[in-house]
Amino acid sequence: MKIVFLGTGSSIPTKKRNQPSIALKYNGDVLLFDCGEGTQRQIVHTDISPMKIKHIFISHLHGDHILGISGLLQSMGLNKRKIPIHIYGPPETEEVIRSVMKLGFHTTFDIYIHEISTDSPQCVLDGEKYQIYSYPMKHSVPTLGYIFKEKKKPQLDIKRAMELGVMMGPDLRRLKEGYPVISKDGKKVYPEDVLLPPKRGISIAYSGDTLPVKGFGEFIRSLDCRILIHEATFDSTKEDHAIETMHSTIEDAINIGCIGKVEKLILTHLSARYDDETENYLREFKTLREEKGIDAIVAEDLMEYPLISKGGGNIGVNVSCHLKASKVIL
Amino acid sequence: MKIVFLGTGSSIPTKKRNQPSIALKYNGDVLLFDCGEGTQRQIVHTDISPMKIKHIFISHLHGDHILGISGLLQSMGLNKRKIPIHIYGPPETEEVIRSVMKLGFHTTFDIYIHEISTDSPQCVLDGEKYQIYSYPMKHSVPTLGYIFKEKKKPQLDIKRAMELGVMMGPDLRRLKEGYPVISKDGKKVYPEDVLLPPKRGISIAYSGDTLPVKGFGEFIRSLDCRILIHEATFDSTKEDHAIETMHSTIEDAINIGCIGKVEKLILTHLSARYDDETENYLREFKTLREEKGIDAIVAEDLMEYPLISKGGGNIGVNVSCHLKASKVIL
Repeated sequence: MKIVFLGTGSSIPTKKRNQPSIALKYNGDVLLFDCGEGTQRQIVHTDISPMKIKHIFISHLHGDHILGISGLLQSMGLNKRKIPIHIYGPPETEEVIRSVMKLGFHTTFDIYIHEISTDSPQCVLDGEKYQIYSYPMKHSVPTLGYIFKEKKKPQLDIKRAMELGVMMGPDLRRLKEGYPVISKDGKKVYPEDVLLPPKRGISIAYSGDTLPVKGFGEFIRSLDCRILIHEATFDSTKEDHAIETMHSTIEDAINIGCIGKVEKLILTHLSARYDDETENYLREFKTLREEKGIDAIVAEDLMEYPLISKGGGNIGVNVSCHLKASKVIL
Repeated sequence: MKIVFLGTGSSIPTKKRNQPSIALKYNGDVLLFDCGEGTQRQIVHTDISPMKIKHIFISHLHGDHILGISGLLQSMGLNKRKIPIHIYGPPETEEVIRSVMKLGFHTTFDIYIHEISTDSPQCVLDGEKYQIYSYPMKHSVPTLGYIFKEKKKPQLDIKRAMELGVMMGPDLRRLKEGYPVISKDGKKVYPEDVLLPPKRGISIAYSGDTLPVKGFGEFIRSLDCRILIHEATFDSTKEDHAIETMHSTIEDAINIGCIGKVEKLILTHLSARYDDETENYLREFKTLREEKGIDAIVAEDLMEYPLISKGGGNIGVNVSCHLKASKVIL
């Protein structure tokens, strides 16, 4: 389980950085966050199988975040993919994907489009093992941040279960599944008698392109996010330009990481100018990281970040999952 | 002046080969032949300025030959390009470019679309210094090969002009431009009295994706083509697959090069399978090259091939230039 940074640049690709895309390998599935031009070729340099991509989450409909979708879908078709793919994005995603499909794409599988409102946060995918939340960000077009949240089952306190006379075997599974059982002594044992809090699951937030949004920091904190991948297109000398183009500076991203109290902040979406001025960017980054006392790194293309579930309880989440609209394009 | 091979792979990109695109740098202009996904990033690794691209020639409307156009145009827009760009392709090119433009592209310049009939060969661009011809090829969709042909002016035989008493100065230019002049002795001197045949210009043919087309070899010979860039997707062990998918084998391409009597044959569009089996491909290529006695190489990504005009006369061309239809999209 890991995050693979496929493209860590911004609107124009450079020698060092391709246009934005981040893959999350989780239990055999691959989730893609944005899909800039050339993403399928970046994937060739990793151990990711494009055929395992189940969900693509688009932050916004700017070309540098979506132009890789068409080629990726086409290659899946050439490889005779049969399983469907789900694409999530802001309103008008369907129209854009329909345009994409005119560019020589031969479909061999179903594509489900999920258009997500940018009015308020919501749960957009409630899977067996994880959930995905969206959060409205602030960019020149409707933009969404996304949060991946692993679902963790409670852990059984075997020692306590034995003390209470629970019979080994199927009863242990029943307790884990939330049902009470009868002990060897004929007493009723309830799940809460023998269950420990679940391990702290993997939880990752991704900002997309955005001005700093304070509420996003608070939202990811409420979701107990451990990792925040935040855009930091510019350094402080380009602050005016960041505001004008509706992007974040290094300091903006670090501030959101601090509000979110994340364990690890990963900066991405660096302006093309930093290919030649990496040192300037990194100097400011290191100074600010020190000042704010945050654990942070700057992403690089093809960098992999390993993921592990940890001890400690999950914080409750009170966002309901109600995304219903999905469409099939044939 | 050179050819830069930006992408020498086929439908699916590999570690070694990006999807098809070839740039021709000629006297400050750049001409692009096909534009697969990721072409703009390949360009970053060369000395080509995307802003100098004046003409894009699309062989056919399959995704792997066109998916780079959108990002390339978008980056030109982000760099505030003002000068127009001309895109040439088979029928329906306009519709495809219109779809491309829905993908987040902000236009700052005019785009002229030139749709070319695939019924017969024609001159599709008659510039001051060069012409471009199209030739109908045989693929699963309407496909065009293209020929770049440099225009060379006749050379003046100064010694002969002096013998005939031509006055130095403007009269020499008049003769070069095709007008007669009066000599020091009052005699009329005609251009044909003092002009040598022009140098042999640069002339390059590109096949696009195609089954071998014998007439194409003969056509490029009639145009005195010195260089042929021909697709050779498969080796002979995949001949059935080549026919089925309407591509050429190494031998097919070499045969066309022999018919065309080109000085240099450059093979491109290698199937993704040869990334791991390069040796098999090259073994057959070298054997056939030896057998057929042709000067040939296999293109690689970012390979540059220098171009020079040579001595020796041009062979006459009897294809008329009549492409009129052009449209502006704003």
